[in-house]
Amino acid sequence: MNELEILKRIAARAPRAGRGLVLGIGDDCAIYRSPSADLLLTTDMMIEDVHFRRATHPADAVGWKTLARGLSDIAAMGGTPRLCLVSLAVASWADQRWIDAFYGGLLRLARRTGVSLAGGDLGHAERVMCDIVVCGDVPRGRALRRDGARPGDAVYVSGRLGGSALGLETECGTAWKRHLRPEPRLELGLVLRRLRATACIDLSDGLSLDLHRLCLASKVTAELDGPIPLFRGASIDQALNGGEDYELLFTLRPGAKAPPSTTRIGTIRKGKPGGPLPPRGYDHFRSETRSA
Amino acid sequence: MNELEILKRIAARAPRAGRGLVLGIGDDCAIYRSPSADLLLTTDMMIEDVHFRRATHPADAVGWKTLARGLSDIAAMGGTPRLCLVSLAVASWADQRWIDAFYGGLLRLARRTGVSLAGGDLGHAERVMCDIVVCGDVPRGRALRRDGARPGDAVYVSGRLGGSALGLETECGTAWKRHLRPEPRLELGLVLRRLRATACIDLSDGLSLDLHRLCLASKVTAELDGPIPLFRGASIDQALNGGEDYELLFTLRPGAKAPPSTTRIGTIRKGKPGGPLPPRGYDHFRSETRSA
Repeated sequence: MNELEILKRIAARAPRAGRGLVLGIGDDCAIYRSPSADLLLTTDMMIEDVHFRRATHPADAVGWKTLARGLSDIAAMGGTPRLCLVSLAVASWADQRWIDAFYGGLLRLARRTGVSLAGGDLGHAERVMCDIVVCGDVPRGRALRRDGARPGDAVYVSGRLGGSALGLETECGTAWKRHLRPEPRLELGLVLRRLRATACIDLSDGLSLDLHRLCLASKVTAELDGPIPLFRGASIDQALNGGEDYELLFTLRPGAKAPPSTTRIGTIRKGKPGGPLPPRGYDHFRSETRSA
Repeated sequence: MNELEILKRIAARAPRAGRGLVLGIGDDCAIYRSPSADLLLTTDMMIEDVHFRRATHPADAVGWKTLARGLSDIAAMGGTPRLCLVSLAVASWADQRWIDAFYGGLLRLARRTGVSLAGGDLGHAERVMCDIVVCGDVPRGRALRRDGARPGDAVYVSGRLGGSALGLETECGTAWKRHLRPEPRLELGLVLRRLRATACIDLSDGLSLDLHRLCLASKVTAELDGPIPLFRGASIDQALNGGEDYELLFTLRPGAKAPPSTTRIGTIRKGKPGGPLPPRGYDHFRSETRSA
């Protein structure tokens, strides 16, 4: 298959227009007619042997997760995702069936979340590598940022933590499903925006590191004073440092009512900016290779 | 250096706000406040040993070219570039000096063209790989597309072709400079939009393949009836099939006056959709490895 043929196959499965998308795959750029809103743009890489393993991660899960990671960033800003662009460099072992399954998983989540696949790039590499851009929007000036947490605010997380790290270790059960096909918390992001959460970040690299980032951005520190909600079977280390849970970590003004399925874990305090835990979550530039 | 420190260094060199950019590097998403316009989005990969070689391509040229390729897509749509997001996976040989020089080259072109570096991702890989997204805009409904060429339209190219391929072969002189630091034709793109060019594409993969793509999209064919403008020293094969010239290929209604430094090379005709030349330009899925 040549590039034109592969693009044709992908384009045939990706709706070309609708929801503001004026022109999708097939030209030099995609064209998006934005409503009068603030645009959100985020980009994430998925690299073989860093973020997934050929032997254990099905192609459709790799596609799903590639998009889920970008959607999680849009959720963390309280936005609505609109379109994505996907650059895929395939290794020689990844045949047409693998490519089809990859886009199959990605497009399944895209349909569920109202996102159009609007373009991308194709190439070859030694190992499979994918980069996604997700574009979304949010009413002007209303994005949830990392830098708005103030002393006295309550710190919350959604869901239960450590499931993804547990799944990666055991490769079975609901934890493995959780690792392979995380659910971006888009609806919760919208609720938090309406509640005027003061800060929000998604838990992509582990609570310890992501809370550290939120505190640095807001120039505050935090005190953990509630129990961390654990995924069934997960250890406290997996919950604090495991990463890839894609839950939301957020802060609310004192006394504000939190949405369901969220847990208060602490309080924002004045002090040397940074989190209260050693930030041991995943950092690509400390650890040369990751467990998956 | 850990990821936070590397991001801090990059962020210190990238202006955080201005020209519609509400929030740059450092949150889950970048925020862009778009004017009432159509947004253009494009993505391109730069892969070690496919698009560049460690031994011959200086890091700042790799950074420059990464952005230039995206800007060229915006130029081909008649748009104005606004911001970019850069995902970089570095190999172990690429040290902090290489990373700094890479961003140095990229940011130099960004300043010159009024583009903000608004975000990105960092990771590790066996070989250096970079993916860029450029976001621009164009007045509503006025983007130059590939699909508007009609029988009788005149076919033009800008500049002189084959220089990049010649430079890749000789690694010296102006042709090598041309290969390393191509100049995206942003001003010409704006002129062509005002002239209401009927179709436009940038010459990234060679005239033979890119003209084929334009003809396919417009459901027409073309006849070459003028001489192809050759870069000094380049062969006709380099001009037709060499790729990476980043000039613009466009069509004008019969009788329309063309801008300076462009050459009429043919005429659009009715017929089986496709170009008049065997499309031998670069296709990642035909050739496993590229000469650079």
